[in-house]
Amino acid sequence: MTTATSTAGNAWLKKVRWDENGLVPVIAQEAASGDVLMFAWMNRDALARTVELGEAVYWSRSRKKLWHKGEESGHIQKVLEIRLDCDEDVVLLKIEQAGSIACHTGRHSCFFQKFEGDDWKSVDPVLQDPKTIYTKPKKTT
Amino acid sequence: MTTATSTAGNAWLKKVRWDENGLVPVIAQEAASGDVLMFAWMNRDALARTVELGEAVYWSRSRKKLWHKGEESGHIQKVLEIRLDCDEDVVLLKIEQAGSIACHTGRHSCFFQKFEGDDWKSVDPVLQDPKTIYTKPKKTT
Repeated sequence: MTTATSTAGNAWLKKVRWDENGLVPVIAQEAASGDVLMFAWMNRDALARTVELGEAVYWSRSRKKLWHKGEESGHIQKVLEIRLDCDEDVVLLKIEQAGSIACHTGRHSCFFQKFEGDDWKSVDPVLQDPKTIYTKPKKTT
Repeated sequence: MTTATSTAGNAWLKKVRWDENGLVPVIAQEAASGDVLMFAWMNRDALARTVELGEAVYWSRSRKKLWHKGEESGHIQKVLEIRLDCDEDVVLLKIEQAGSIACHTGRHSCFFQKFEGDDWKSVDPVLQDPKTIYTKPKKTT
């Protein structure tokens, strides 16, 4: 994990109660619709970079590196507002979702499985074939 | 941590990817307003009990026991819908919040600190003095 040496002096970053792995859970909510689109994690660098860029940058726990959301798919998340909870250990982003697709399955939201009866049912449509999402040229702007 | 022996046979519970501590992160969103009210954790028993009761039951990591939200404050969360994300490791509850207060500080939402300038500012009003929230008799219904 990288160390946020350049941001270590920032009081606002220190106010966040990072967990034992130096991470904080992050909820991404579409500002206009109120839809909860995804859930991910940030480390100090990711949160500092998010503020700097005005776009969501997460920490990928599987790839162990910063993940500028949309860097491959173009499905950037423009950050309109950042909130911290009462315990200072959860972050809420209010965002604009490029392409209206946050999920790697090609759906609007990652939360497309609804509990019905006694099982989880996929209830939201696939807006774009996921095979075509990650074959596009990287967003360069 | 308790073991969900009574619910171990339920395929829908097994579909959830519980973390190394047997927990899953849970986002509680007010169904009517779309407001994200809080973030907590559940174990298998908590999720099974939530489905059974139709009210949010979390796992308190600090108290290491099931926490029927509102059991002391009366600020019960009626669960209208339960969703699971694409990786099956995050749960989203759509709820009705009793008393319109989810936060132990007496605010509507736990996410009342907004990043402005270079710091977190409390921007949402306290709706009820927290001192009075936990002195009421326990909800008995």
